[in-house]
Amino acid sequence: MTPSEFRLSSRAQSMKASEIRELLKLVGKPSMISFAGGIPDPGLFNVGLFQDAWRHAFGGPSIAREALQYSTTEGYAPLRQWLADHMRKLGVPATAENILITSGSQQGLDLVGKLLLDKASKVITARPTYLGALQAFSALEPQFVPLEAPQPTGPDAARLIYLVPDFANPTGQTMSRSARQNALDQAKVLNAVIVEDAAYSSLRYDGEDLPAIAALDAAEAGSIDATRTLYCGTFSKTLSPGLRIGWICGPATLIRKLAMLKQGADLHTASFNQMVMHQVAEMGFDSQLERIRSVYRVRRDAMLAALDHHAPPGLRWKKPEGGMFIWLELPDHIDAYVLLEQAIRQDIAFVPGGAFFPDGAGRNTMRLSFSLSDEAQIEVGIFKLCSLIGQQAMAKAVNVY
Amino acid sequence: MTPSEFRLSSRAQSMKASEIRELLKLVGKPSMISFAGGIPDPGLFNVGLFQDAWRHAFGGPSIAREALQYSTTEGYAPLRQWLADHMRKLGVPATAENILITSGSQQGLDLVGKLLLDKASKVITARPTYLGALQAFSALEPQFVPLEAPQPTGPDAARLIYLVPDFANPTGQTMSRSARQNALDQAKVLNAVIVEDAAYSSLRYDGEDLPAIAALDAAEAGSIDATRTLYCGTFSKTLSPGLRIGWICGPATLIRKLAMLKQGADLHTASFNQMVMHQVAEMGFDSQLERIRSVYRVRRDAMLAALDHHAPPGLRWKKPEGGMFIWLELPDHIDAYVLLEQAIRQDIAFVPGGAFFPDGAGRNTMRLSFSLSDEAQIEVGIFKLCSLIGQQAMAKAVNVY
Repeated sequence: MTPSEFRLSSRAQSMKASEIRELLKLVGKPSMISFAGGIPDPGLFNVGLFQDAWRHAFGGPSIAREALQYSTTEGYAPLRQWLADHMRKLGVPATAENILITSGSQQGLDLVGKLLLDKASKVITARPTYLGALQAFSALEPQFVPLEAPQPTGPDAARLIYLVPDFANPTGQTMSRSARQNALDQAKVLNAVIVEDAAYSSLRYDGEDLPAIAALDAAEAGSIDATRTLYCGTFSKTLSPGLRIGWICGPATLIRKLAMLKQGADLHTASFNQMVMHQVAEMGFDSQLERIRSVYRVRRDAMLAALDHHAPPGLRWKKPEGGMFIWLELPDHIDAYVLLEQAIRQDIAFVPGGAFFPDGAGRNTMRLSFSLSDEAQIEVGIFKLCSLIGQQAMAKAVNVY
Repeated sequence: MTPSEFRLSSRAQSMKASEIRELLKLVGKPSMISFAGGIPDPGLFNVGLFQDAWRHAFGGPSIAREALQYSTTEGYAPLRQWLADHMRKLGVPATAENILITSGSQQGLDLVGKLLLDKASKVITARPTYLGALQAFSALEPQFVPLEAPQPTGPDAARLIYLVPDFANPTGQTMSRSARQNALDQAKVLNAVIVEDAAYSSLRYDGEDLPAIAALDAAEAGSIDATRTLYCGTFSKTLSPGLRIGWICGPATLIRKLAMLKQGADLHTASFNQMVMHQVAEMGFDSQLERIRSVYRVRRDAMLAALDHHAPPGLRWKKPEGGMFIWLELPDHIDAYVLLEQAIRQDIAFVPGGAFFPDGAGRNTMRLSFSLSDEAQIEVGIFKLCSLIGQQAMAKAVNVY
């Protein structure tokens, strides 16, 4: 029996294994310089703090039993409270009732899709945008519409506007204050919900902090419960991705609906993980942020300097003010998928930018992550990569003339 | 802005907050005797084993960093291997490629729904059946069809047959060997996939072990990759629910599709939890099973004895051979929802059986769980509950005559 003989859902029939994923399975080799994943450097995890939190969570048998038992779908109350306080510092006047704990912010995207999307509903996204959002929403079989396109209003209007305002995955770019305000105005005209993916928002290295769209929305609406923004946060880029703790912050009526959807999806997020993450966040969120920001800033600068130094003509990029990514645009005729195969043979990895377009565009683009490599690796990796790109550009030139 | 003003998906519009959930929020009171949740007794968790595993997982900084980092969607390789070995002991010839780790078996149900169901696709279930399966599948807006109904074949045939063969939630009943065979035969006729929910299968207290449907299927097909059964397992009823570790075992082609769906749903299950669960399963799965079986057997027997002793006329139940539940059928005119309100005032909780019917039937039924209470509490709780039922029956009698 082959899978084509099973009657699968139309979403499952249209899924394809990612060619990139197959290529990147090789990235685990120790000799590899990886600019591929949007992955924190594990050397920066505050292992000591987690050890303390783990010890605390089984300090007595009754706490250990709580950590091992079922818990509520909405999440561990002290963590919800900590996150409400955290959101208030960002200008979003949340209480614990406005917070749903999720199994990573990826689950947040799955749940907001389920909340808002029927088959063929319209979703507005930047183009390119986060691959995982495209995957999560694709399970609902919506229609993706680019942010820049003219938007119909009325019953056919888009229901969901997905944005990564800060240091976006994959482009590294940040929405200006006025772009945020425009998006909010547009959401009101369309009667759409904004999903604000804040995965990288804490990782600013220079420039001034800009308000979260959720904060602009709450300031205008006068109360979080009158807003139309669902803010998806995560500890994955700051404290630890392996514990899978994210959150959604938004109006309590929608949070309650999202909790019902979460109950069907995985009952609740692991009790132990929430208790540990609460303890670690309480003890060391700010100091961890300071530490990783200073390291990633140096790595970003090293990658920018290496690009300035080694880039062949025709390569374009912009400086990101934070996050983990630099987005490269190659000369039109260079295919980043072909380049990746060559690069992997030289122990360099990155993600071809085409993966981040819903429609197969962007084959001449690539995403470089600077989070996982030290300055020396970045210098070597960018040198090799730029040489490969230069050779490709040259090969084309020879063909033409 | 009230939620009705948002344009939500049709699934979200049709969701209703569970009246039972609201009532059962009171169950946390220490004075309460709870026959409500299908919840393991936390006093039986092997805290020592988990402590050892936790210590092991941060025995060195490099293991700790692995536990805190992203990992693969398919799951932690040693745990997949342990589970493949476990499945082989159950007669299912699995390799690691046939195993997907899930965030509890609830996520397994969410994923198999996404794999198989389009809007209005038919799902065959027992009636009553597990509430969480109804919730997970309802997000796909299928049509629920009772197991006993005549089933059309062809393109309109049901795509998914959901079964809890052992000690079912909520009825406690077990499918005979021939009923399992019939279900498999029917799945072949319909070209449907069987989802075998094995949440309670390890908890047999007497009678002889019956083969998993997945084992019958593999024996007939000659290879697991030629089967049509997706077996959903979990550690929640044996080792710990709070770590949220379940698995799906099935043909590799479907497991790969399910992994793609899981990637969109939550990227992967928490790394740390998988490492800890692997260690605990390796060290103590069998001994833990022996321990909890002996305790739960005594509690089941205590509940059966108390019912025999105190039940008013007209109350019906069957002895379960395992699991956590006894299903009561009350005289037709007694409403278990009304009874629950009265019972809670006397510090007794249970789940009204109507919750487990997709269509509002079964208001005169209730599910009692014996897992969480000791023998003395069971005796007191059943005595009080039977008195309440007796009063209700009497009240009706007075009205009639």
